[in-house]
Amino acid sequence: MQQLPTVEDVARVAGVSRQTVSNALNSPHIVKPETMTRVKAAIAELGYRPHASARRLRTRKSSTIGVRLDPMTNGISGSLLDRFLHALTEQAAERDLRIMLFTAQGPEGEIEEFRRLRDGADVDAFVLTSTMHEDPRTAWLRDHEFPFVTFGRPSAADDLGDPIHPWVDVDGFSGAEQATRHAIDGGARRVGYIGFDDDTTTARERRAGWAAESAARLGLGSAELDTLARAVVDGVPQGIAAASALLDLPNAPDALVCASDSLALGALMAAATLGRPGIPVVGYDNTPVAAAIGFSSVDQPLDLVAASALELLFGDSGSSIVARKHSAADPLYRLLTPTLVARTSTQLTHMEEPGSPVAGNHNER
Amino acid sequence: MQQLPTVEDVARVAGVSRQTVSNALNSPHIVKPETMTRVKAAIAELGYRPHASARRLRTRKSSTIGVRLDPMTNGISGSLLDRFLHALTEQAAERDLRIMLFTAQGPEGEIEEFRRLRDGADVDAFVLTSTMHEDPRTAWLRDHEFPFVTFGRPSAADDLGDPIHPWVDVDGFSGAEQATRHAIDGGARRVGYIGFDDDTTTARERRAGWAAESAARLGLGSAELDTLARAVVDGVPQGIAAASALLDLPNAPDALVCASDSLALGALMAAATLGRPGIPVVGYDNTPVAAAIGFSSVDQPLDLVAASALELLFGDSGSSIVARKHSAADPLYRLLTPTLVARTSTQLTHMEEPGSPVAGNHNER
Repeated sequence: MQQLPTVEDVARVAGVSRQTVSNALNSPHIVKPETMTRVKAAIAELGYRPHASARRLRTRKSSTIGVRLDPMTNGISGSLLDRFLHALTEQAAERDLRIMLFTAQGPEGEIEEFRRLRDGADVDAFVLTSTMHEDPRTAWLRDHEFPFVTFGRPSAADDLGDPIHPWVDVDGFSGAEQATRHAIDGGARRVGYIGFDDDTTTARERRAGWAAESAARLGLGSAELDTLARAVVDGVPQGIAAASALLDLPNAPDALVCASDSLALGALMAAATLGRPGIPVVGYDNTPVAAAIGFSSVDQPLDLVAASALELLFGDSGSSIVARKHSAADPLYRLLTPTLVARTSTQLTHMEEPGSPVAGNHNER
Repeated sequence: MQQLPTVEDVARVAGVSRQTVSNALNSPHIVKPETMTRVKAAIAELGYRPHASARRLRTRKSSTIGVRLDPMTNGISGSLLDRFLHALTEQAAERDLRIMLFTAQGPEGEIEEFRRLRDGADVDAFVLTSTMHEDPRTAWLRDHEFPFVTFGRPSAADDLGDPIHPWVDVDGFSGAEQATRHAIDGGARRVGYIGFDDDTTTARERRAGWAAESAARLGLGSAELDTLARAVVDGVPQGIAAASALLDLPNAPDALVCASDSLALGALMAAATLGRPGIPVVGYDNTPVAAAIGFSSVDQPLDLVAASALELLFGDSGSSIVARKHSAADPLYRLLTPTLVARTSTQLTHMEEPGSPVAGNHNER
């Protein structure tokens, strides 16, 4: 490996002392402008870079953000966090920050990684995803006063007026409300809902948005709304099952709003199988699949989520952690509004008699 | 933040000198066994961890692998590299290694990041994806003797008998060959091919696999094969266009093998629009979309790709770079074989008259 220029080399070329170079690097404000110019010229000439590890040791600053990579999901919405990771990595690069990925088994394993990365000064802050109710990870980070921000609200109980930690979230109530409004504006009078069966803010907010819009525009009561809603695990097969159950109701829905594109794809397949291929279905997360197949879906502004998370940690333009206190003027959270991407619907039709890929019925046409 | 235990604390508790603790950490072979035992006990009691940055500075070892995060693609196959990143992060964790993500504009920008990460001792090695012909990145890493491995062959010109650098790849020839065989075994007699129009090993190998199987099993000549093949940019719309052109041929194909699930989804949509909804289509990468919609697809063993890449860098079980020389007994590359995942086909049917999501024709049923 080629020999790298050292502080001594810079001092020699600039004709100043090693200490002056060190001051220029670490305390520029105490260095005379003309001296600063000479040092900068020498640094440029030599292509000198302060050794990152030495700098980290000196400043305990790594210019790195720790992110736990969630286990791969097979749902077609599983890529949402991957898309967020892309957005975060690109936004971080603009601040000269990098992303350190790690994996962990469960919250306790993740906390152990927090400890190791903190002890090693490997990261300056963490960005957490997939937050949960009474999250032990955020509790640990708060207790140890380590900077972090979450993509997702701390919990339904969190008081927006005084958040317990910085967070960025996308308003699921608004997203489901927009999806439901889109269906109603198109003529639907009984909008069914297929959501998540877990006890998360995401699950609650999205259902509430659908319910509020249905109640306001269609005058449906909570009992009737309950018959039109299903709560399931995210996935295409679950979407097929839930949509089939709803469409088999005596007073079946004439449109379906789903909490994910996986559920929406399942709903489209179920509608086709039940001879209702034209029933409008609205998905969530606006995955490439929604674009490819052509159904409407709610889009989360992931670039803005990433930018907001970094802004909460580092301020408007910096790459150094800024200690912030919540205030009405400068809140410690960002609640972003999603947008509905409306598309012309596509029908999916299952073969009546599944066969091998070449047993298709095109010969019968 | 709580104060972390120091080397001095360990020395005090163990009743040895600071230098002895340092020796125990860095040169255990020169430390008496009973002293080693005392130091280890003190380290365990205090929960002491050598400062990672200090360790990096001393050893220039970061236990970190650098990976450039490619720009987000919108194709539904775009997630392949994300799935590889998941596999790599999980496999690396088992070796107590972490992944450092960065972004860069173009090869030159990526090389600049290589330089910074190397100078900062931020990473021990790089794993490169999306390799290109005459890749300037691998040339730079070779010139600077920095450890790396690529997911993807160096180039079509590379001699497997003496690879210019360590690489892992999945045999695209075999993948396309298996896909074509599957269609032919099912009864197809004219298998069309929709591949990539770029000058990459991937594009060449997959087309060659389809061509070889079609020639061997169906006795088609190269001129006839050329009429049955299309080369396009990856994406659903491109798949629709290419499949439409092939299916409009006077002597149209009776099955389609595609180089990606995006192209395959487009082909299914085109077949449906042209009244050929039953025509078998085989995709590539076995994305969640292929599973959800239910078409056959070629699966790349990404966990094995990740494990092989780390094995080439770090040996069978270690987390320290091993310098390896290519030999017939211990080659510097791993060429892995993909597997075809056969599924019962699903038909996609476009609405004859596109309308808004609620202008569907379910009322007509």
